[in-house]
Amino acid sequence: MEDLTNVYFSPLPDSPYVKPFRFNYTQNGMEKTWDLLEVHDSVAIIVFNVSRNVMVFVKQFRPAIYYNRIPPQDRQNSIDTKKYPAELGIALEMCAGIIDKQKPVEEIAKEEVLEECGYDIPLEKLQRITSYRSGVGVQGALQTLFYCEVTDNMKTEQGGGIDDEIIEVVEKTIPEVEAMVRSPGPISSPPSCLFALMWFLHFKADQFRT
Amino acid sequence: MEDLTNVYFSPLPDSPYVKPFRFNYTQNGMEKTWDLLEVHDSVAIIVFNVSRNVMVFVKQFRPAIYYNRIPPQDRQNSIDTKKYPAELGIALEMCAGIIDKQKPVEEIAKEEVLEECGYDIPLEKLQRITSYRSGVGVQGALQTLFYCEVTDNMKTEQGGGIDDEIIEVVEKTIPEVEAMVRSPGPISSPPSCLFALMWFLHFKADQFRT
Repeated sequence: MEDLTNVYFSPLPDSPYVKPFRFNYTQNGMEKTWDLLEVHDSVAIIVFNVSRNVMVFVKQFRPAIYYNRIPPQDRQNSIDTKKYPAELGIALEMCAGIIDKQKPVEEIAKEEVLEECGYDIPLEKLQRITSYRSGVGVQGALQTLFYCEVTDNMKTEQGGGIDDEIIEVVEKTIPEVEAMVRSPGPISSPPSCLFALMWFLHFKADQFRT
Repeated sequence: MEDLTNVYFSPLPDSPYVKPFRFNYTQNGMEKTWDLLEVHDSVAIIVFNVSRNVMVFVKQFRPAIYYNRIPPQDRQNSIDTKKYPAELGIALEMCAGIIDKQKPVEEIAKEEVLEECGYDIPLEKLQRITSYRSGVGVQGALQTLFYCEVTDNMKTEQGGGIDDEIIEVVEKTIPEVEAMVRSPGPISSPPSCLFALMWFLHFKADQFRT
């Protein structure tokens, strides 16, 4: 799927994406520190195509996953991409995006569904499910999860992301989604995707089973 | 619950917990960079007490959540803890821990259940559910999820964590767990906890409903 070459590491420069710092505090009289990362809040959208009863996923190369699949002794300063192909870092996810604009979250969700998946959805099709903390260790940004039913008629564009994003749109049937959450793993997806799939299977899927 | 004072920020020193760096790569001929964080793999355990049909959670102050609940203009160099009490940063989570020892993941899971929740469980009570990537953005470490049924007889210790951890053990009934996953949020929990709850509700809960 991807041609990956020339992988090497360098120190973190002043980064607009990743701002690490130390949080100092006194809890019940005890001085403590905790190392944190400031990241953007985000949205994620469960996109279900009711014309063909398929769940719409996005598939892309994720450096964070690729890096973690390489044995530590083979990722000291660089990685041998012949030995470790890009496929190791491919993730299957819900459509999602960071909130980096001053807009309602619904507008940002609508844009991501169009840019990544190619569906032009009316705002009122977005059902807000809930929001939660994307992590509790080093990052605690808020992610808001939506559910959206789409039809083939709403597919007005190719999808695949904007700028230099390389995103593949992938569809799975309900039995395939069930097989995914029952898989012993390792699953190349984040827990937010698995929560979204379980939510769909538990609360929505029955009406679409044939 | 917590007395929090003297919150201020400082630059990240050389940290054993958070190692940020820049990942450089060439994808399909295009030079790119991605900023990453190296973190430990981890385990999480769904602990269900079958003596009283309650789910066992851990509750603790999480700097990452507290920080994100403060408006940006009020978290420049420090935080006024009178204006923003510790309660804002309290998270409800599954029992969990990082893998920082050379031991089988089952052993680490067993230790966490004892240290955090106070239940001394035989290894064979641990049912491995699956594993997934704890994030896809800046961190892609592997988290392995277990399910474990416990009884009141196995509760040999107080729980609450070791060293300077301040952890409260909290129990919820199945209807309370259902109310939690149906909440409009913001939920002060990570998606891995919500996945665990949905997995339990979908695959396990029916046998415990009275």
